[in-house]
Amino acid sequence: MRTDIPVNHPRFISLQTRAQLVEGFQNGLVSSEGLIAHGRGEAFDYLLGEETSDYSVSAIEAACCCLLAANHPVISVNGNFAALCSTEIVRLSNLIPARIEINLFHRSAEREHLINQELERKGAKNCLGSFSSKSNIIPGLSSNRRIVHSDGIYNADVIMVSLEDGDRTQALVEMGKKVIALDLNPISRTAQTANITIVDNVIRAMPMMIRTINMIKLEKNSEYMQGIICRFDNKRNLANSFKLMLLGLERQSIPE
Amino acid sequence: MRTDIPVNHPRFISLQTRAQLVEGFQNGLVSSEGLIAHGRGEAFDYLLGEETSDYSVSAIEAACCCLLAANHPVISVNGNFAALCSTEIVRLSNLIPARIEINLFHRSAEREHLINQELERKGAKNCLGSFSSKSNIIPGLSSNRRIVHSDGIYNADVIMVSLEDGDRTQALVEMGKKVIALDLNPISRTAQTANITIVDNVIRAMPMMIRTINMIKLEKNSEYMQGIICRFDNKRNLANSFKLMLLGLERQSIPE
Repeated sequence: MRTDIPVNHPRFISLQTRAQLVEGFQNGLVSSEGLIAHGRGEAFDYLLGEETSDYSVSAIEAACCCLLAANHPVISVNGNFAALCSTEIVRLSNLIPARIEINLFHRSAEREHLINQELERKGAKNCLGSFSSKSNIIPGLSSNRRIVHSDGIYNADVIMVSLEDGDRTQALVEMGKKVIALDLNPISRTAQTANITIVDNVIRAMPMMIRTINMIKLEKNSEYMQGIICRFDNKRNLANSFKLMLLGLERQSIPE
Repeated sequence: MRTDIPVNHPRFISLQTRAQLVEGFQNGLVSSEGLIAHGRGEAFDYLLGEETSDYSVSAIEAACCCLLAANHPVISVNGNFAALCSTEIVRLSNLIPARIEINLFHRSAEREHLINQELERKGAKNCLGSFSSKSNIIPGLSSNRRIVHSDGIYNADVIMVSLEDGDRTQALVEMGKKVIALDLNPISRTAQTANITIVDNVIRAMPMMIRTINMIKLEKNSEYMQGIICRFDNKRNLANSFKLMLLGLERQSIPE
């Protein structure tokens, strides 16, 4: 991990996260396309002021209730997500509990294996992926992501995805599944197609999800959770996140 | 070059450009940080609607006049620029004519050599770089980019930079040079410090620069060029590009 970034740099956390991703790339977890995708995320996070908004907090609460109320929740993991959040992914999957399935757009057996190894190092057991048997196909999807596990995404009722492609989100929703998306771009197809969209950086959202799940499990009942899920309006939440981004931009506007 | 992107994909050109950059990375032209930087650019291009605006056309016209009127114009080339536009860089440098200097933020002798090879394959002759002798130092700059060639950037009066860091742009302007920047982010330090900023994707701006240079050389005289240069107001142009980005965003706004 690079340590030559001065801690007083105005964008220290962003640069450190970037270094973590480059390290994940060097270790074979992240694809070269994943590095580019991270750059896109960086730009949107920058527009959002690189902080968790109240709208993200609402979406996180709804997502946590939805995951806890699910019969068969699954967390879908790709290279970037594993490189940035492996510890949090494993903690979240144990807390809910939810299965973890490794599902890559730029699939390679070696990368899947390395991601699995990284998650196991953090305590994960029995992650699913195309290395396990019992694969199945998501209808209407042509990318490599169509191949999923029967005990995982294929039979899940709630799936959490991060840094996702719009095609798969749409295909999953069309299969009748509830999709929770972590996506920094509020106008992406994934963001607009998912049932609950958390417009936030995974490095901030994941620790907050863990705290929220713990709080709900300690203090709340299923009636409370159903109320939160029913009241959550994803379209409105997205529109609000989007307005926040516009306001942030307008504040930075260049005087003529 | 990847060919598995369907031509009817709504973001075909962007995905193809991304594949071209990944190919440049695999061939050693592009750094891993360059891939992330490209992703940031993608996000800004997406906000701009992935098309050349009238403001970009104006900035391109001013930039072309400025390059043609210069005594010693230089095109500064890095890995991303070479991976995406090597043919256009060579054509532009022959048309003006201008020297090409390879100048990298994440410098390595091997990467410089590979970029030079790529440009020579497209017909470039005598590209400058730290591999040539007669190097000199840009005052007040600590990055590797401070090392420049005496016959190139060091003695240039007009320098065109692409996908640039803010520190070098500032140092070059402080040396009294005119800087033309290709930058998709209108609020970046480079964009705001340069004399002429073309807020556009290099893959669209470079072919347009070639057409514009040809047109000016055929039809226009030096009085016309001076008029264009005098009338161009970079601050106003940037503010307009920025407003366009905001308008584009507002159009995409999600109804509540």
